[in-house]
Amino acid sequence: SQVLSAGEQAAAFLFTLKWLVICTLVGVLVGSASAFFLVALDWVTGFREMHAWIIWLLPLGGFSVGLLYHYYGQRSALGNNLLLEEIHRPREIIPFRMAPLVLIGTLVTHLLGGSAGREGTAVQMGGAIADQFTRLFRLRPRDRKILLITGISAGFASLFGTPLAGAIFGLEVFVVGRLRYEALLPSFLAAVIADYTCLTWGVGHTGYAIPFVPDLTLSGLAFTLVAGAVFGLTGMLFAKSTHFFIQQFKQQVAYAPYRPLIGGAILALAIWLTGATRYIGLGIPTILASFEVALPWYAAFVKILLTAFTLGAGFKGGEVTPLFFVGATLGNALWQLVPLLPLALLAGMGFVAVFSGATNTPLTCSLMAIELFGVESSVYMALACVVAYLFSGHSGIYGSQIIGSPKH
Amino acid sequence: SQVLSAGEQAAAFLFTLKWLVICTLVGVLVGSASAFFLVALDWVTGFREMHAWIIWLLPLGGFSVGLLYHYYGQRSALGNNLLLEEIHRPREIIPFRMAPLVLIGTLVTHLLGGSAGREGTAVQMGGAIADQFTRLFRLRPRDRKILLITGISAGFASLFGTPLAGAIFGLEVFVVGRLRYEALLPSFLAAVIADYTCLTWGVGHTGYAIPFVPDLTLSGLAFTLVAGAVFGLTGMLFAKSTHFFIQQFKQQVAYAPYRPLIGGAILALAIWLTGATRYIGLGIPTILASFEVALPWYAAFVKILLTAFTLGAGFKGGEVTPLFFVGATLGNALWQLVPLLPLALLAGMGFVAVFSGATNTPLTCSLMAIELFGVESSVYMALACVVAYLFSGHSGIYGSQIIGSPKH
Repeated sequence: SQVLSAGEQAAAFLFTLKWLVICTLVGVLVGSASAFFLVALDWVTGFREMHAWIIWLLPLGGFSVGLLYHYYGQRSALGNNLLLEEIHRPREIIPFRMAPLVLIGTLVTHLLGGSAGREGTAVQMGGAIADQFTRLFRLRPRDRKILLITGISAGFASLFGTPLAGAIFGLEVFVVGRLRYEALLPSFLAAVIADYTCLTWGVGHTGYAIPFVPDLTLSGLAFTLVAGAVFGLTGMLFAKSTHFFIQQFKQQVAYAPYRPLIGGAILALAIWLTGATRYIGLGIPTILASFEVALPWYAAFVKILLTAFTLGAGFKGGEVTPLFFVGATLGNALWQLVPLLPLALLAGMGFVAVFSGATNTPLTCSLMAIELFGVESSVYMALACVVAYLFSGHSGIYGSQIIGSPKH
Repeated sequence: SQVLSAGEQAAAFLFTLKWLVICTLVGVLVGSASAFFLVALDWVTGFREMHAWIIWLLPLGGFSVGLLYHYYGQRSALGNNLLLEEIHRPREIIPFRMAPLVLIGTLVTHLLGGSAGREGTAVQMGGAIADQFTRLFRLRPRDRKILLITGISAGFASLFGTPLAGAIFGLEVFVVGRLRYEALLPSFLAAVIADYTCLTWGVGHTGYAIPFVPDLTLSGLAFTLVAGAVFGLTGMLFAKSTHFFIQQFKQQVAYAPYRPLIGGAILALAIWLTGATRYIGLGIPTILASFEVALPWYAAFVKILLTAFTLGAGFKGGEVTPLFFVGATLGNALWQLVPLLPLALLAGMGFVAVFSGATNTPLTCSLMAIELFGVESSVYMALACVVAYLFSGHSGIYGSQIIGSPKH
C-alpha cells in the first residue's frame, strides 16, 4: 500500500475548504447577530431596572408577540425543537423569519420583566441564518444537517463566549448519550469564527471567578457526587416544570395569543405583590452574588417557577441562563448546609451541572466550566456534570431530543 | 405524570453505587501500578543515560522478552488491540499476566535504549487488572465492556496525570468518529481515582509551559488549519511506518523471539554509529527543549523511524510519548519555517495534534492540551487536533479500531 493514500487526503482537503467557506459566512453572520442581541439585551435590561412600572406592559407585550407568532411565525413557535427535528427528519428549510421573531420576542420578554434566558434566541437565530445557505450552496441532506449544527454551535459559542462548549453543544444536543463526528470540524470552525466575530464587534461576556479550588480529597469526591445528583434532579424538575406549564396553558387557553396575555397579567401581578424583581429577567447580578455571599435557600425554586411559567405562557428567550441561576443559587444553598467545599466552587458546579441535567449535554457543560472558570476546578465540574446527566432521567427541556443510548 | 419518576432515579443510584465500588478498586490498583511503573521507568532511563554501553544488550534483552511473550504470553502480544477486540467482540477474560509482561517488556526496552512510549503499558496493565473483576462481580457482557473502558481510562489518566483526557480516551479510542455515553460516569470515576492514587503515592508528571498565547487572528487561524493538516499527515505517516515494520519483521523472521533479537542488534548498531541518543527512550528532554529552542528539522522523522522500527521488532511500550516527541519537534520545525505563532504554542499544538491524527481521538487530545498547557491555548489546540483527525485517514496505530462514522 502507498504511504499516503492521496484520494482520502484530497477528500479531506475539499471537505475542509468547503466548510471553511460556509462556516466563515455562518460564523460572521451569526456572531454579528449575537453581538447585536447581547447589546440590545443589555439595553432593555437596564431600561427595565430603571423603570419598574414597565412590568405592567407584560400582558400587552406578550399578546403582541403571541399575535406575531400566531399569524406570521409559520413553524417558528416550535423554537429549538424545530432545529432538532429538522436535523433528525429533514422536511423543509427553516423560515428565515424565525431569526427576527425570536429576537423581538426575547427583547420584549426581557424589557417587560419575564423570567427567561437567551441561548434559545442565539441558537434559533443561528439555525435560521445558517439554513438559508442550503439553497445557495445546493446542499444535500447530509450536508444540510451539518449546516444546521454549525448554526447552533455558532449561536451558542458567540452568545456565551465559549467556543469549545459551543462546538460540542451543536454535536451533543440532538441525541442523548451519543456524539458523532461528521460535523466535528464544521462545528468547531463555526463556533470559533462566531465567537471571534462577536468579540471583534467589541461585545464581551460576563466573567465568573472561582478564586480557590482545594485539592481533591475522598470526602470532597463523595460530596461532589451527591451534589451532582441533587443538581441532576433539579435539572429534571426544571424540565418537568416547563413542560407542565406549557401543557397547562395549552389545555386551558385554546387561542395561542391569549396565553402570554393572561400569563403576562398573572406574572406582573405576582412580581408586584412579592417584589421579587431579583428573580426576573436573566438574573445575572444574582448569579454573580451566588459565588460570593449566602442567598435565600429557596431562590432556585422561585426561579424555576417563574421561568417555567414565563416560557409556558409563550414568552421567548431560552432556558440556559435561568438554569445557571438555579444551579448557582442551589450550590449556594448546599454550601450553607454543608460547607465542605468553597462557596464559589459549589456555585460554579451547580451553574454547569443543573444545565447538564436539564439538557443532557454533560461534555458541553464540562467544557463550558473550563472556559468560564478555568482548568483548576475541571475535575469537580466534570464529575458533577456527568452525575447530574445520569440522575436527570431520559427527558430534558428539549422534547425533540432522541435517545441514542440509555444512561444506565 | 409524576414530577420525579422514582424508578429511573433508583436505577441511576444503584448504577452509581455499583460503579463507585468497582471504579475505586480499579482506580486504586491501576493508579498504583502506574505510580510504580513511572518510578521504575525513571530509574531505568537514568541508569541508561549513565551507562551508554548498555545498548549492546538490546538484542539479548529483546530476545528474552520475545521468548517470554512467545511461550508464556498467551494473547498478550496483541497489546492494546486485544483490549479493543474484547470490547467489540467479547471472547474471554484478558490474561492477568499481560500486566507484569508488558511492565517487564517496557522497562527492558527503556533500560536498553529502544525508542518507545509508555501509555500502551499503562493501558494494558489497566485493562488486564480491571478485567479480573469480571469474574469476581459476575459482570454481564455489557458491564464487562464498561469495566474494560475503566481500566483503559484509569491507566491513561494516571500515567499522564490528565484525568479528563484519560476518561475521554477510554470512551473515544475503540470506535473512530463516535462517542457513546454508557460508560461515561465509570470512565470519569476510574480516571479521577487512578490519577488521585498515583499523586497520593507522591509520583508527579512532567510539566509543560506555553508562556504566551496571542489572541486569535485570521492569519493565525489559517496557519493553525494548515499546521493541523501537516500534523495529521504526520500522524498517519507514523501509523503507516509502524505497520510497515511490523509487517516486514513478520514476513522476514518467522520465529517471533528472533525479531527483537535481530531488531535489537540493528538498533544498537545504528545508535552507536550515529550517536543518536537524543532519539532513544521516551525522549522527554528533547520534548521539553522543543518548546524553547530551535531543533533540527529532521528530528521528527528520525523519531518516527526509530520508534516504528523498535515497536515493529517486538519491543514493548507504546506510541504516545514518541507521538508527543514527533509532534513537538515538527511544530518546532514549522516555527522555523513560518514563525507566525510562538514557538511553544506550535510545539504544543504538534504534541497533541500528531497524537490526535495517529490515534483518531481528537477530543482526548483537545482535553489533554487543556490539562497540560492550560485553557488559554485551547482554541488553537482543538482546531489543530480536529483538522489532524480529519487528515490522517481512516486507519491509525490501533488496527482494531472500527470505523463508526466516516470522517468527511
